Formats: sequence, C-alpha cells, structure tokens
Amino acid sequence: MATPKKQLHLTAFMRPVSLHTGAWRYPGAVPNANFSLPHLKSFIQKLEAAKFDAFFMADHLAVLNMPIEALQRSHTVTSFEPFTLLSALSAVTEKIGLAATASTTYDEPYHVARRFASLDHLSSGRAAWNIVTTGNPESAKNFGLDEHVEHSERYKRAREFYEVVTGLWDSFADDAFDSRSQESGIYFDPSKLHVLNHKGESLKVRGPLNIARPVQGWPVIVQAGQSEPGKQLAAETAEVVFCSPRDIQGAKELYEDIKGRAEKYGRNRDSLRILPAALVIVGDTVQDAKEKRLKLDSLVHYDSAIASLSIALGSDASGFDPDGPLPDDIADTNASKTGRAGVIKLARDEGLTVKQLAQRYGGYAGLAFVGTPQSIADEMEEWLSQGAADGFTVTFPFVPQGIDDVTQRLVPELQRRGLFRTEYEGSTLREHLGLSRPNNRFFT
Amino acid sequence: MATPKKQLHLTAFMRPVSLHTGAWRYPGAVPNANFSLPHLKSFIQKLEAAKFDAFFMADHLAVLNMPIEALQRSHTVTSFEPFTLLSALSAVTEKIGLAATASTTYDEPYHVARRFASLDHLSSGRAAWNIVTTGNPESAKNFGLDEHVEHSERYKRAREFYEVVTGLWDSFADDAFDSRSQESGIYFDPSKLHVLNHKGESLKVRGPLNIARPVQGWPVIVQAGQSEPGKQLAAETAEVVFCSPRDIQGAKELYEDIKGRAEKYGRNRDSLRILPAALVIVGDTVQDAKEKRLKLDSLVHYDSAIASLSIALGSDASGFDPDGPLPDDIADTNASKTGRAGVIKLARDEGLTVKQLAQRYGGYAGLAFVGTPQSIADEMEEWLSQGAADGFTVTFPFVPQGIDDVTQRLVPELQRRGLFRTEYEGSTLREHLGLSRPNNRFFT
Repeated sequence: MATPKKQLHLTAFMRPVSLHTGAWRYPGAVPNANFSLPHLKSFIQKLEAAKFDAFFMADHLAVLNMPIEALQRSHTVTSFEPFTLLSALSAVTEKIGLAATASTTYDEPYHVARRFASLDHLSSGRAAWNIVTTGNPESAKNFGLDEHVEHSERYKRAREFYEVVTGLWDSFADDAFDSRSQESGIYFDPSKLHVLNHKGESLKVRGPLNIARPVQGWPVIVQAGQSEPGKQLAAETAEVVFCSPRDIQGAKELYEDIKGRAEKYGRNRDSLRILPAALVIVGDTVQDAKEKRLKLDSLVHYDSAIASLSIALGSDASGFDPDGPLPDDIADTNASKTGRAGVIKLARDEGLTVKQLAQRYGGYAGLAFVGTPQSIADEMEEWLSQGAADGFTVTFPFVPQGIDDVTQRLVPELQRRGLFRTEYEGSTLREHLGLSRPNNRFFT
Repeated sequence: MATPKKQLHLTAFMRPVSLHTGAWRYPGAVPNANFSLPHLKSFIQKLEAAKFDAFFMADHLAVLNMPIEALQRSHTVTSFEPFTLLSALSAVTEKIGLAATASTTYDEPYHVARRFASLDHLSSGRAAWNIVTTGNPESAKNFGLDEHVEHSERYKRAREFYEVVTGLWDSFADDAFDSRSQESGIYFDPSKLHVLNHKGESLKVRGPLNIARPVQGWPVIVQAGQSEPGKQLAAETAEVVFCSPRDIQGAKELYEDIKGRAEKYGRNRDSLRILPAALVIVGDTVQDAKEKRLKLDSLVHYDSAIASLSIALGSDASGFDPDGPLPDDIADTNASKTGRAGVIKLARDEGLTVKQLAQRYGGYAGLAFVGTPQSIADEMEEWLSQGAADGFTVTFPFVPQGIDDVTQRLVPELQRRGLFRTEYEGSTLREHLGLSRPNNRFFT
C-alpha cells in the first residue's frame, strides 16, 4: 500500500482581515470588513467550504502606536475582540478551527483557561490558543503600568502561565460526569476533580476550573515566537508554530531549529506543525498577479511608506527621488547590513522605484506567494517537500476577492495534486491537524 | 388620549439555568442544560419568541465552596463562561438582550470595556454589563491572593472601574468613521478619538479603546448590590437593578430607597429599572403549583438541606425529627431574630415538616410566585402598580418545562392584560427597557 501523500495545513490569518496596510482601499474591497459580523461570517463560511484547518484571530491590547498621519489611514484602529467574535462564529460554522490570541502578560490564567475551555465546548472541539507575551509596549499603559514588562520576564511568566492553564484544563477527569444520575442525585464524581494548588514564581492559582475538561482535552496550542526564548517556548509547548521566514532557505533553518529543539525537549517532531505566514496573491498570469500587488502597494500613503523604507534601510530615505531608482550611494550606518542588502536586492530584482519600494515596506514586506494557482501550488509543494513548512498561515491581500481567489482557484489546484484535503477527516481541530489528544496529567 | 399602561420588563436569570439546587433532577428536566449549547440555544429562542427583555448570565470565578456531600450534587460545578456563551447566542437571536456578569475586582477595565463593546457590536446593540465586585471569597485564590479583597475596598475600585470602562467606551465619537473614504485613504477622523489618560486611586489606564463606540453608546449597566455601598453604587450607575426582596413590602422599601438615592444623585427615577429576582412556578391550580414546588424541594439532599436550615434559624437543626413539625423550643442564639421569625412563619403558614422546611432552604428560599397564570399575573400586576417593581428577573424551577410554562402560559396572560409587550418596540436592549442612549462625554 502506498504511503499517503503528505498534505498541507492551511489557516487563515484574519485580524485585521489583511495585514496589508492598503487592503481596505483596493477596488472591490469591503472597507469595514474587519469590523462587520456579516462579512466575517461570510469569510469564515467560505474558508470552511474550502476545508481550511482554522480561522486565526490575532489581537492587540491597544491602538497601535503610529503617527496621526499613518493612524488615520489604518484599518487596525477598530476590530472585534477575539473571544466574542470567535464564539459568535462558532455558532455559524461546524468544522473549521477557531484560534484566538490571549496574552500571558496582561491576563489571568484562570480567565484564559476558562474562556478557551468554554469556546472549545461551544464549538465541539475547535478552539486553539495562540500564546502571546504581548510585545507592543503601548499595551502596558492600558493595564496600569508605565513601562512594558521586560522580555525575559515575559517569557518566564508565559512558560508558567502555560503550565497553570493546562493544569486547570485538567481539573476534571474526562469521565468525571459519567456517574451523573437524576435518580441518585449525584452530579459528578468528586474523586475525579483535581485542585491544582499552583504556587510558582510568577503565579499563584488554586483551582479547580469551574468547567468540564475541554472536548479536545486541551485546545490546540499555537505560538509565533522567533526570538531565542520565543523559539524555546514554541519547542516546549506549541503544537502549531506560526512564523515569518523571508524565504525557503530561512524557513528550512527555522523548521529544523524548532523541530530539533522540540526533539531535544523529548517531543516527537510530528507533535508540532510549522505554518509560515504568507500573503497570497493569485492572478491569471504571474505578471497579472504582480500587477495586482503593485496596484495594492500603490494604495499605501507615501508619507508613512517612506518611514518604513527608512527603517528597513537603516538610513533616511525621505530625500530620495520617489520616482527614481534606489540611489547607489546610501550613507552607511550601524543598521543591519543583511536587512539593507535585502532591500537593495528587492529593488533591483523587481525594478522598483523608491516610491514603489517604500510602499512595499509600508504595505506588507513579509513572505508572499504571487502568481497563478499553478505557480503558487508549485511553490507550496516545494516548501512542503523540502521540509520548510507543514503548511501556511495565509493572509489575504484584500477581501472578499482575495479569499475567493484562494478558496476557488488555489485550493482546487492543491486538491487536484493531492496536497490538500477535499473533506475534513474528523470533527475537532486536533483531528484536522493530525495532533493527538493530550492525556489528563492527574487522571488516567 | 389615554396614557399607555405601564408594562413589566422581564429578564431571565440563566446561570445555572435554575437557581434551585434540585432543578436538574425534576422529572423531564435536562440534567446538563446548564452546559449544553443546543439546549441554551433553544431556551433563548423561546424567551425571544415571548419577547423577554434580556437573557441574563450570572457568573462565578470559582467552583463554589461547599462540603463534598453537597458539591457532588450541585449542577453549578460546570458552566459556560458568559462572554463566549452570549456571543455564540448573539449569532442565533435577533432582538433579545444579552446580559453578562463581569467582575471589577478580578478583571481589568480595558478587557471588560473591550468585550462588552465587542458583544454590543456583534449583537447590534443588545449587550448589558452586570457589575459585580465578586463576593465569593474562593475567587481570590484563583487570582493570586490568599485573602478576599475587603468589601469597601472592592466597592471603591468598582466605582472607579465603572468610570474607566464608560470612559473607554467613549474613546471614539459616534461619527468618527463617517469620513472613511477608499478614495482619499482616510479611515477615520483622528480629532474624534479621545485618549482617556485615567490616573485614579485604584486604576491607571491610558486608552484609547481599540474598538468603535458601542451601538448603544454604552451597553446597559446592571447592578445587584443590596449592601449600603451596593445600593449606593446602583443608585449612581445602574440602569437595571436586580435585587432580592422577600416580599412586596420589602420590595417597596428597596424600590424607594434606590430610586430616592438616584434622584439625590441627580438622576431621573425613570433612568433605572428595578427588577426583583423571582422563582416562577406555574400550575393548573394554585394547589398544583404548590405541589410542584414541594416535589422540586423534595429532590434536595437532606444532609445539605439541614445545614441551610440551621443557618437560616441560627441554631443547629440536625437533631430535630425530620418528619415532625418545627419544634417550639428552639435554643436562643445571637442570630438574627427577623430571620428566625421568617422561618417559623413559613413552617406554620405552609404546614411544613422539618425536612420540607430544610429542603426549601437548601433549594431556593427567595421570592417565588407559585400559582396559576392568572394568580401570578395578579401578583405581578400588584407589584407593578404599587411601585414595588418595574418587572422581574425570572428564574425557572426546572427546564425546559419551567420556561415553557412561563412563555406559553404566564406571558400570554400578561399580554392579554396589556402588562407585557406583544412585539419588541425597537431593536436594542436600551429600547426594550425604555432607556436613553448616553451621550459621549468627550464629543457632542
């Protein structure tokens, strides 16, 4: 019997609905998509019809810090809160996973454990927790602090927070309620309730959680860290890693790094899925897709775009001729030479003017697949087969068209090649991702 | 033109789905109703069809502290978390209000403001916040504390918390997004964004909130306090007061007390609705309803019931003959004489044995309307006309039958008398309750 072909996992990154700054201005795009339940409902239903693994809501605990000139143009200023939105969407979907971001720095483990357990029960086993330590320093000011919590301190707390949350999820044995009987009046077996009594360096939480063990045992654990402690936390805890490599070579290194760390920690390589984030722009021809991207980038306001280019170059770009090529004589600074070399290479490779280059950095400069359904499927297949990814965290250039392009054009091509499911294999997110259900650490 | 008749407001208290300890054991009752989305969905849809003002989810931040003997029989040990549940239910309802409890002691104002704003947007203006300071001392232990936060300290923080949350809801002017234009690239008018910069005694929160002003301006404010600081907080902030008087006389006093305090504070009497909590048991005859109640009480386990009776009497009742009447010679203690007199009066009035009396206190000993649709409508009409209530917070003896009894038998009788709406007048919860939409304090 032939080994079944390895398949891609696909999740949709949906807050805001596009990471591209100009997305809401693209012709045909819905400007309030990020903030309209009917639109979000139609998006998730399209993604479910295409058999996506999950719908992923990132989060910010503040209005992002940017100059007024950029802020007034940003579709990030208003958005639903993840738990309320995903819970509402759980009622209008049946299979697709629901991944929410929750902060270990500015929330309490009892609240986080409860909300995810509740979402997992509401959705019959489709919840996932994206563990973030909240890097945005503006958030601290909304939670009583003047200064952001220091990086290593945040990761130390995150690791302990994870232990507490998973411990609380294990408060009840899976079969604690099996003895319930209207006749006898017994509602559950109290010998199957565990009091956590956690007392650690950063947290003290007694428990038990006041909710039955989640359908999935534990909701799926997602992590995005790329710093040293971030990668280590992912290797020890994550079941889905959402990362941002620049190219296939960087992705392979990151993939090996994280899976290697996980093995060193005693985990099986297959107990975590690595899904790089990628903007996907589908065209009739590769040229058509590239033109869509240029048009999308052109919607980014130049004043905020040029600031992003200056940051990427490590040198003030505001004096350059916007319509000319990137000058050869950029003043040398202490900024990262690799970063600058990447900008120069991009300008040369795509023949971009200073303005176009600035708008790329001001819009979305991360990994992108830009081409036809066939060329993108070729690339994704290569990433999968070369061990650079187990799938992708897809972000859309604009909506709803970008979602339709992926679900109606790219996904069928992936399915034709046997690279993506044509039907959900199971009903929980763990089953979609091929992850095992964790045992309860307190009961066997 | 005749003045329109004053009507009742009705909300349903739904966590657990019945406050009565024996509810889940009643013949025909669904034992896992408190914890099953399909059941909760059918309940709220019945309540919406009957034009209830709101569906009210109380909350606890811990498994309630009781001896194992009682705990193993309690249907409170597992339940959905309110925001996740109400958000899911918002997607399957259109008009009914959605009231969630959130703690001012164990949560952060930025989180609370965001979740309610999000729920209000998701539901097109149906959210309400039940402000609680969390009286259950077990909760402290789930949030890093050994001791419960002291009562007056909790109320001081609650008052400030309310100011911060409502201030955050006012971050954006109602028309901040009117200038959005795909053509110009302007997403909102930054002169219509206010940074709160709150620095108070208990809280420091910068803002702004990262979500547009709620549909209702502010979600409706609900409060249940009956202590001195609780009543004062309600008088200053609440738009719905959910209280627990024992009888119509006590209710009238409480009604006048709270409305009087509100007027003294400069508010209009009509800017808050007082809705006492009441268990409603409907029968074919008054006798039939009373028998249902006795049967329901009989499902309470005697060991835990007798402890409740001892507390109510202020004297150990465990030595009494369960099947005999309450003895005349109860040892005198320092306990409240009014409380004890109430127990003795109840025993005499209803001719209850010690066991039946204990099961009443162990089940649900608060205000109850027990009778036919006509007799209950008479009572409710009297409460309304005498200024004892603006309506009721209804709790059901068992489900689904108790909900059907109220929605299919009592509500039609109230409607026939012109005491309850036959159609929703508006679409937001504020409109159902006849409450005005608050102005934005920072923008006119």
